[in-house]
Amino acid sequence: MSTNLAVIGGDGIGPEVVAEGLKVLSAVLPGVNTTDYDLGARRYHASGEVLPDSVQDELSRHDAILLGAVGDPGVPPGVLERGLLLKLRFAFDHYVNLRPARLYEGVSSPLAGVKPGDIDFVVVREGTEGLYVGAGGVLAKGTPREVATEESLNSRSGVERVIRDAYTRAQSRPRRHLTLVHKQNVLVNAGNLWSRTFAEVGKEFPDVATDYQHVDAASMFFVTQPQRFDVVVTDNLFGDILTDIAAAISGGIGLAASGNINPTKEFPSMFEPVHGSAPDITGQGVADPTATILSVALLLDHLGHADAAARVESAVADDLAAREPGVPVRTSEVGDRIAERVS
Amino acid sequence: MSTNLAVIGGDGIGPEVVAEGLKVLSAVLPGVNTTDYDLGARRYHASGEVLPDSVQDELSRHDAILLGAVGDPGVPPGVLERGLLLKLRFAFDHYVNLRPARLYEGVSSPLAGVKPGDIDFVVVREGTEGLYVGAGGVLAKGTPREVATEESLNSRSGVERVIRDAYTRAQSRPRRHLTLVHKQNVLVNAGNLWSRTFAEVGKEFPDVATDYQHVDAASMFFVTQPQRFDVVVTDNLFGDILTDIAAAISGGIGLAASGNINPTKEFPSMFEPVHGSAPDITGQGVADPTATILSVALLLDHLGHADAAARVESAVADDLAAREPGVPVRTSEVGDRIAERVS
Ligand SMILES: CC(C)[C@H](C(=O)O)[C@@H](O)C(=O)O
Ligand SMILES: CC(C)[C@H](C(=O)O)[C@@H](O)C(=O)O
Repeated sequence: MSTNLAVIGGDGIGPEVVAEGLKVLSAVLPGVNTTDYDLGARRYHASGEVLPDSVQDELSRHDAILLGAVGDPGVPPGVLERGLLLKLRFAFDHYVNLRPARLYEGVSSPLAGVKPGDIDFVVVREGTEGLYVGAGGVLAKGTPREVATEESLNSRSGVERVIRDAYTRAQSRPRRHLTLVHKQNVLVNAGNLWSRTFAEVGKEFPDVATDYQHVDAASMFFVTQPQRFDVVVTDNLFGDILTDIAAAISGGIGLAASGNINPTKEFPSMFEPVHGSAPDITGQGVADPTATILSVALLLDHLGHADAAARVESAVADDLAAREPGVPVRTSEVGDRIAERVS
Repeated sequence: MSTNLAVIGGDGIGPEVVAEGLKVLSAVLPGVNTTDYDLGARRYHASGEVLPDSVQDELSRHDAILLGAVGDPGVPPGVLERGLLLKLRFAFDHYVNLRPARLYEGVSSPLAGVKPGDIDFVVVREGTEGLYVGAGGVLAKGTPREVATEESLNSRSGVERVIRDAYTRAQSRPRRHLTLVHKQNVLVNAGNLWSRTFAEVGKEFPDVATDYQHVDAASMFFVTQPQRFDVVVTDNLFGDILTDIAAAISGGIGLAASGNINPTKEFPSMFEPVHGSAPDITGQGVADPTATILSVALLLDHLGHADAAARVESAVADDLAAREPGVPVRTSEVGDRIAERVS
C-alpha cells in the first residue's frame, strides 16, 4: 500500500525547503505519491481564494500533508492563518501539535553553558481548542466605546485526549517526566479543568513523574534551566509561545519541526517547519531545509515508519555535527547530503 | 507634605526584602510614614480573610503601597492572586504594569555573548483588562461534558491609555522606539483593536519609531536579540509571560522590579519585586532584596522624586558591579550597602 502525500509548498522559501524534504523522503521511503496543492499568499492574491472546499476535500483523502510556509506581507493578518493553517488544524482535528526541542551537536544555543543533551524535550501543544477557536467579537468598532473579546474554550474531552497523548509520549521516553504548563492561578476555570484532568489521567500512568508550572515560570525556566523538561503539555496559545522559545534556545526556528497530528488517523496529519516564508531570502538557495527534513521525520514516525524516521533524524544530527561553523548553508546541498546519508 | 506608605510585607521572604527596601527608602527620602498591613497566606490561614473591605479602604488612602510577596503552597491557586494582588490592581486601576529589564554590570545573563547595554528595555504591560478580568465560567464541572471558558475583554479606552503611556515613556528615552506585541493573526478582534489604536495614538508621537511583533516571535527575540527592544507595550497576559522572560535574561527574578501604576494618581500605585515568597529560603537572611530596592526606585519616580529614584538605581548598579562573583548574598548587608551609597 503506497503512501499518498499532499504537498503545499506555499510561499517564499516554502517550496525550496519542501523540495529538500521530499528529496529525503523519497530516499528513505521510495514510492510515495505526491500531489502538489497551490495554496497560500500567491493564490490568494491571484484569485482571492484561500482554501476552497473542494481542495479541503481532496486534502482529506491523503495520508498526510507536508507544508512549507504560507504568507507574505501583502496579506492582511489572519487571512491565511485562520483561513488555511488553523482551518486545516481544526477541520482535520489536529489535536496534538507536536514540537520537539533538541540541541544537536554542532549547533550553538544562545544560552551560555548549555550543551547538547541539556536540551532534549518535546512540547505537546493542544491544537484544536483554547483561544484559537475564533470565539469572540467586537462592539462599537472604531468608536470610543469599542470592546473586543477573545474567548478561550476548553472541553474535558479535548483536554483529556491531548493530556493522555502527552503521558503516553512521556512513558516511552527514558526520563518519563511530564510537565503541565498553564496559568491556573489566574485562569481559574480553564486552569482547574486542565489540572484536574492532568491528575486524573495521571493515575493511568503511575510510572510517569509530573510537575506543574505557571506559563510565566515555565517561560523563564526554558531559558534558565531547560534541563528540567522532558515532555511538556499545554494549551494552544501557551504552546505557541513556549515552542518559539524552545526553538530559540535550541538553535533557532531554522531547525524547528512540527507535526499537527490527529492520532486517530481519521484525517491526515500535517507536518511543517515552524519558520515562515522568509521573503527576504527567497530564491537565493540559502534557506536551511533542516526544519522541513525533521518534519518529514515526524511524518514518517506518524505513518508507522519509526525506523525510517530515526534514520532521518540521525542523518540530520550527523549533518549538523559535520557542518563547518560560519559557512552559509546551501538549501539543495543540505538536502543532497542528508538524502545520501539515509540512502 | 509627607508621604504615607502602606507596607504589605506578606509571606516568606517578603518581609525580609521589604525591610531592606524601607531602609533604602528612608535613607534617600527621610520622613516617610509607613503603616504595616498584615495580608497574605498567614492571615488567610489564620482567619480565612484575604482582603477585608475596610483594609482595602485604608490602603486606598495612602500615597503608595510597597509589597513584598504573598503566598505559600498551602493556599489554593487563585485565592491570593485574585483576592488580593489582582483585586488591588483592578480596584486601584493599575493600568500600567511597568517592568524594566536591564542587564547591570557585574550580573551574568544566561544568554551567551550578551553584555550590559545589550539589554535595557522596559515592558509596559496592561494591568486591568484582557484575560485577567476573571470573565468566564464552567459548564458541567467534573463531568465528561465539562466546558471551561476564559474571556479576554479589551476596551478602546483601556487599550488607548496604556498605549499612550508607553509612547510617552518611549519618547523620553534616547532610542525612542516602541514595539507593540500581540497575536493579531489569531486573536483578530483584540489584535485589531490594539493595532489600530497603536497606529492612531502613534500620530501624536511622530518622533517615536514603532514596530509590531507577534507574541511568539517577540518571546524568541527576547532570547536571541534583546538589543531590538526599547519600550514594549502589550496586553496583560502576554506581558506576564514576556516580563518573566525579560527577568530571566537580565539576571533572574531576584533582580526584577515592578510597578503597578495608576498614572492619574487617583488611587495609590503598588510596587513589588517580581519574585515570589520563596518559602525554601525564608528566614535564612539570604534573599536578595535588590528587586525590592529597584521597586522602591520606581515608587520614588512615580511620586515625583526622580532624582532620588536615579540615586537608588545607580547605587544598585554600583553595588551589583562591586559584588564578588560567587559570594552568596546576605539580605541585610545588601540593604546596608545600598542605603549607605544613597545617603
Ligand atoms: C501562523 C500562526 C497561526 C501559527 C500559530 O499561532 O499557531 C504559528 O505561529 C505556529 O506556531 O504554527
Ligand atoms: C501572581 C500572579 C497573579 C501575577 C500575574 O500573573 O500577574 C504574577 O505572575 C506577576 O507577574 O505579577
